[in-house]
Amino acid sequence: MTKSNILKDSFQKTAYKLSQHGPRNAGVLQAAFESVDADLESDIYGTGPVIEKFQEKIAAFLGKETAVFFPSGTMAQQAALRIWADEKGNNKIAYHPLSHLEIHEQDALKELQSMEPLLLGTADRLPTLDDIRNLSETVSCILLELPQREIGGQLPSFAELEEISIYCRSNGIRLHLDGARLWEITPYYQKSEKEICALFDSVYVSFYKGLGGIAGAILAGDADFTEVAKIWKRRYGGDLISLYPYIVSADFYFDKRIGKMEQYHEAAKDLACRFNACDGVKTVPEVPVSNMFHVHFEKPAEAVEPILAKIHAETNIGCTSYLHPKPGNACGFELSVGDAIAEIPAELLEQVFEKLGK
Amino acid sequence: MTKSNILKDSFQKTAYKLSQHGPRNAGVLQAAFESVDADLESDIYGTGPVIEKFQEKIAAFLGKETAVFFPSGTMAQQAALRIWADEKGNNKIAYHPLSHLEIHEQDALKELQSMEPLLLGTADRLPTLDDIRNLSETVSCILLELPQREIGGQLPSFAELEEISIYCRSNGIRLHLDGARLWEITPYYQKSEKEICALFDSVYVSFYKGLGGIAGAILAGDADFTEVAKIWKRRYGGDLISLYPYIVSADFYFDKRIGKMEQYHEAAKDLACRFNACDGVKTVPEVPVSNMFHVHFEKPAEAVEPILAKIHAETNIGCTSYLHPKPGNACGFELSVGDAIAEIPAELLEQVFEKLGK
Repeated sequence: MTKSNILKDSFQKTAYKLSQHGPRNAGVLQAAFESVDADLESDIYGTGPVIEKFQEKIAAFLGKETAVFFPSGTMAQQAALRIWADEKGNNKIAYHPLSHLEIHEQDALKELQSMEPLLLGTADRLPTLDDIRNLSETVSCILLELPQREIGGQLPSFAELEEISIYCRSNGIRLHLDGARLWEITPYYQKSEKEICALFDSVYVSFYKGLGGIAGAILAGDADFTEVAKIWKRRYGGDLISLYPYIVSADFYFDKRIGKMEQYHEAAKDLACRFNACDGVKTVPEVPVSNMFHVHFEKPAEAVEPILAKIHAETNIGCTSYLHPKPGNACGFELSVGDAIAEIPAELLEQVFEKLGK
Repeated sequence: MTKSNILKDSFQKTAYKLSQHGPRNAGVLQAAFESVDADLESDIYGTGPVIEKFQEKIAAFLGKETAVFFPSGTMAQQAALRIWADEKGNNKIAYHPLSHLEIHEQDALKELQSMEPLLLGTADRLPTLDDIRNLSETVSCILLELPQREIGGQLPSFAELEEISIYCRSNGIRLHLDGARLWEITPYYQKSEKEICALFDSVYVSFYKGLGGIAGAILAGDADFTEVAKIWKRRYGGDLISLYPYIVSADFYFDKRIGKMEQYHEAAKDLACRFNACDGVKTVPEVPVSNMFHVHFEKPAEAVEPILAKIHAETNIGCTSYLHPKPGNACGFELSVGDAIAEIPAELLEQVFEKLGK
């Protein structure tokens, strides 16, 4: 057995987990459909009450005129960027070097869309207004991801966001929000989704991260924007005859968890504080600004794996199934707080940090 | 109320339907998941037993090396054509003028892929080997749809298919099967899916037409083809974190209905025979070669709508919710036989044709 299998296996055997809402299994779907009337009619190629009502509900929640349900954020965001590029007649857009579009989509913007992404700032920090001012070429659209996931879920100040929004509007640049974790940042900003979204021309939100649904995304904006987005959804093969398995579950888990983001944020801050109290361990950001953060160890994965595997076995609490290498012979993992943390008995959780601190 | 609403409303009120398997509602999903263990783990971004086992099952059934589950046929087929175009370094492909890609995908091949489709033959008939020989330009790939849905579900002879396959192979042209209704043609050809698929380099099949699943598609071919198809699935935003709602239901309804295609074909032939016995009514094809056919009336929709609405009200059997205009001041609708026809009491069904024949 390789060392990484030791960590993964020990993680899978634990009864409790620090992250997420519980296992991703068929029970998640079954729970969402348990009280649904069998006669509930399927959506049909983007039409019908089940999809239209949910789109209206989320559009209103985000303070946008209209919304379109997509099977994935990948598809929704490519559509958004293409719409703004076509509007401006300029296929250049800009985003953070570690944007989902840059590192997780197999170069789709270039291979499928013939678009030219410019990178904003550097990979290790948030993009700033100066990065936008200093872009070497004119772009049609800027994509901001809030929080910036690949650097631990960091956020600019709300004041800087407002400045960026004003700058983009006065310079004819469309501003798109990658809001994969939008719900999760409202407690930190002390702003509603509406107040945040008002700074952006178009917004993508996800239903399977903080909300714990199965899959699916919403793209929201003005009516003329979403009308074209529906055409792109059809072109991408995302206009399925039936999306209701995702829509019904998205709605179910939205109602179940949208009010719990403050609780997740508080638990994340508490957890991060405990990790930071351990020698050779730190979190990024030091104080979480959402339900997520990264845990960094000052040792390489080979040294940390047996320590975590032992903690898994002794406490029955799973911290992580993997460790990614980090600069300086270090390693780390991502943690996103959901419902699972509340299941852990306090004295058991205490043991994790006692053992890790040694 | 407009006339077309009269027809649609009268159709929706009927207890029995000539077409399909029953209503598309949440019950379809609930039935598929009723006996599924809640602990069944979700697929994760295209990996995990639930997706891998189903891909292997369908690949083996089609006699192909490997298979990839896609959310939609639109996405799967665009991926297939792009792979063959890239292989040949030639972005020209060819298909029937009424191919799904030409009329139902918002010009995705041109707008998203920058590909150049050539049209094979004319819209009112099947493409022939001569159409392929006479193409004005060299193409990387030819897409054949079996049966050709938009002309009532027609099929070439199996001998002609074999000739086309041989011609394409000896001329360096890839042959792709749009098998949206592949299962449905095996009784007519008296060939297995394997025997039909052996003539093609790549094959797309669907799970929500004759099989009556919720949505989803499989793209099958050699391992090096499907490896690249997975990259395109990611680029298109089809590599969802969880596709199991579609996969589990596809598997459930595949097992339930794959053995019933002969029954559907026989019922379609019987129904078509009865329509053809009515004055001013004919079916295309005259004798169905699958579970589907088109019903044509020699009168315009305005004249036929009240007749059908009356039959709906008097027999409690729904024939169609719509009528499309047809050349020569005529109109028609599509009929796809599934489980629903078997629910209809024989004497009630007889009344439909007695009334229609008057």
